[in-house]
Amino acid sequence: MPTEAGSGKEAGERMKRSILIVIVLALAVGVSSAARAADALPSWKDGKTKHAIVQFVKQVTTKGGSKFVPLAERIAVFDNDGTLWAEQPMYFQLAFVLDRVKALAPQHPEWREKEPFKSALAGDLKGVAAGGEKGLLELVAATHAGTTNEEFEKAVKGWLAAAKHPRFNRPYTDLVYQPMLELLAFLRANGFKTYIVSGGGVEFMRAFSEKVYGVPPEQVVGSSIKTQYEVRDGRPVIARLSEIDFIDDKAGKPIGIHKFIGRRPLMAFGNSDGDFEMLEWTTAGSGPRFGLIVHHDDAVREWAYDRESHVGRLKRGLDEAPQRGWVIASMQRDWKRVFPFEK
Amino acid sequence: MPTEAGSGKEAGERMKRSILIVIVLALAVGVSSAARAADALPSWKDGKTKHAIVQFVKQVTTKGGSKFVPLAERIAVFDNDGTLWAEQPMYFQLAFVLDRVKALAPQHPEWREKEPFKSALAGDLKGVAAGGEKGLLELVAATHAGTTNEEFEKAVKGWLAAAKHPRFNRPYTDLVYQPMLELLAFLRANGFKTYIVSGGGVEFMRAFSEKVYGVPPEQVVGSSIKTQYEVRDGRPVIARLSEIDFIDDKAGKPIGIHKFIGRRPLMAFGNSDGDFEMLEWTTAGSGPRFGLIVHHDDAVREWAYDRESHVGRLKRGLDEAPQRGWVIASMQRDWKRVFPFEK
Repeated sequence: MPTEAGSGKEAGERMKRSILIVIVLALAVGVSSAARAADALPSWKDGKTKHAIVQFVKQVTTKGGSKFVPLAERIAVFDNDGTLWAEQPMYFQLAFVLDRVKALAPQHPEWREKEPFKSALAGDLKGVAAGGEKGLLELVAATHAGTTNEEFEKAVKGWLAAAKHPRFNRPYTDLVYQPMLELLAFLRANGFKTYIVSGGGVEFMRAFSEKVYGVPPEQVVGSSIKTQYEVRDGRPVIARLSEIDFIDDKAGKPIGIHKFIGRRPLMAFGNSDGDFEMLEWTTAGSGPRFGLIVHHDDAVREWAYDRESHVGRLKRGLDEAPQRGWVIASMQRDWKRVFPFEK
Repeated sequence: MPTEAGSGKEAGERMKRSILIVIVLALAVGVSSAARAADALPSWKDGKTKHAIVQFVKQVTTKGGSKFVPLAERIAVFDNDGTLWAEQPMYFQLAFVLDRVKALAPQHPEWREKEPFKSALAGDLKGVAAGGEKGLLELVAATHAGTTNEEFEKAVKGWLAAAKHPRFNRPYTDLVYQPMLELLAFLRANGFKTYIVSGGGVEFMRAFSEKVYGVPPEQVVGSSIKTQYEVRDGRPVIARLSEIDFIDDKAGKPIGIHKFIGRRPLMAFGNSDGDFEMLEWTTAGSGPRFGLIVHHDDAVREWAYDRESHVGRLKRGLDEAPQRGWVIASMQRDWKRVFPFEK
């Protein structure tokens, strides 16, 4: 009898809690719906680009509509460098790695003659950039081999808290694009699972993706180095090796999507030709699909670069976007605000 | 003016839809809470094992409690073969592959002398099992090379729809464990993200995981072969190569968890020594952690095997579970029902 009374009481309390949850949900839904109704993308100027995004989302979420897509299949993938945050004057992860290269250089005389180390030590960013995200990954692998995943995460967080971007004199995580933050939130409010699919190091991005973008670690796909499971003094650790495991760039992006997500996205967002295959794979799927390229054409508020750039080169994407039905978002014309810190 | 009236009307309709959503959510929360209060695990006998599970979930979900864990960190990982469904007389994926090996054998005379093909062709399951999940993966790689991911998925689904398990004369997907289906649902109702982390092929499992377990493809971690992105006749495809990419078994399981999920699970469920490192990694985390091993000790309703088995060997796990605080679930004593089709 005491047991029954106990579980009756427990059930009652759970029901009370449930009602509370419902009220909270009601408020949340009410607010988010109201926000959507007003304008969920205030930093996007009214025009063709914004309209294309809003229209697509409306179509795939309209129950009973011919283009309706069930919740489970609403996957949106975003490149990171140059799409969600800036990538000039160099990939931000490279800035993180450069200090470490310099610190370790005396122990590695061979680096003086070997790329990408040679360029890194000479401060020759073009030379480093010429190695692409693979070169960057080599630097990461060489400079953080032997550390555990926890030590690496700590190092990234420490650097992000202390380092400042040379042009804006602000933490690197301030250089995220306000319109893209709004877009991520807008898609999530419409039932999308938002993923990062980037050539950058997966462990580097996971150290801040949840806090900065609201994207949890398990929704970050990136390049990786090999790791090894070890029990050190009775404590299991995941140790970083100095070997590249996977390069999530170019044709590697659809491979990464297939490997980690296991289904084709509905929407893909990129900014360089490293994202070409990701957009190609996404938009080749049956039913409604959406591809968008962020075009860096705003030298005043951000940077202007495309066809000839060493970082974030965009040539084929610009040429083929019209015939493929991909949207080109102009930073200059489509964005009211670039960074959250702008007035 | 018409625009304003239009958007006012739209906002009103959205609000109406929001209220509807709230009502649906209220019903859902009410029902699930009632179910939990009654008994979310009816196929588990009352006793130490069931109590340990329920108690742990209660602790980590009790807000304000000393062991409370935020929603985002509630990750539970499950092995598949022998943990969520049966694995006798052979891994079910092997049954799928064997037909294909036989069909292709005439074109591969070298298979007659090469393991695991030799055993596969001789119908020697012990010989095949001796190659472990790596041997299985070699068979998968060799027999499905060149097919696209879509063709492979279709082949798996076709096989699952037609093939029958030799002992029970039912589709293989009927041989899932009812208590584990309840456990998956119970954890999800308590805010957990449930993942499969298995030595089996990831693409094989993704073909049925959502339908059978309610686990979406993006929450399936498994062994994989290498794939290649190609544009065939203007249509992009992901083609399977005959090379192994990753073996998600033994020490590969924590590596797979780190690679795909990027954070340490709260709970881990396995049945063989192939799951040892996954449980070790999970339960070595700080704060509350939970490890459970399903013990196959029911020869009448399922199978009885452990220390000396060729498939699903469990030796170290049995020896070390007590000192590591892992729960051993006895199929015989802890499960009222094994399969959903039992009365």
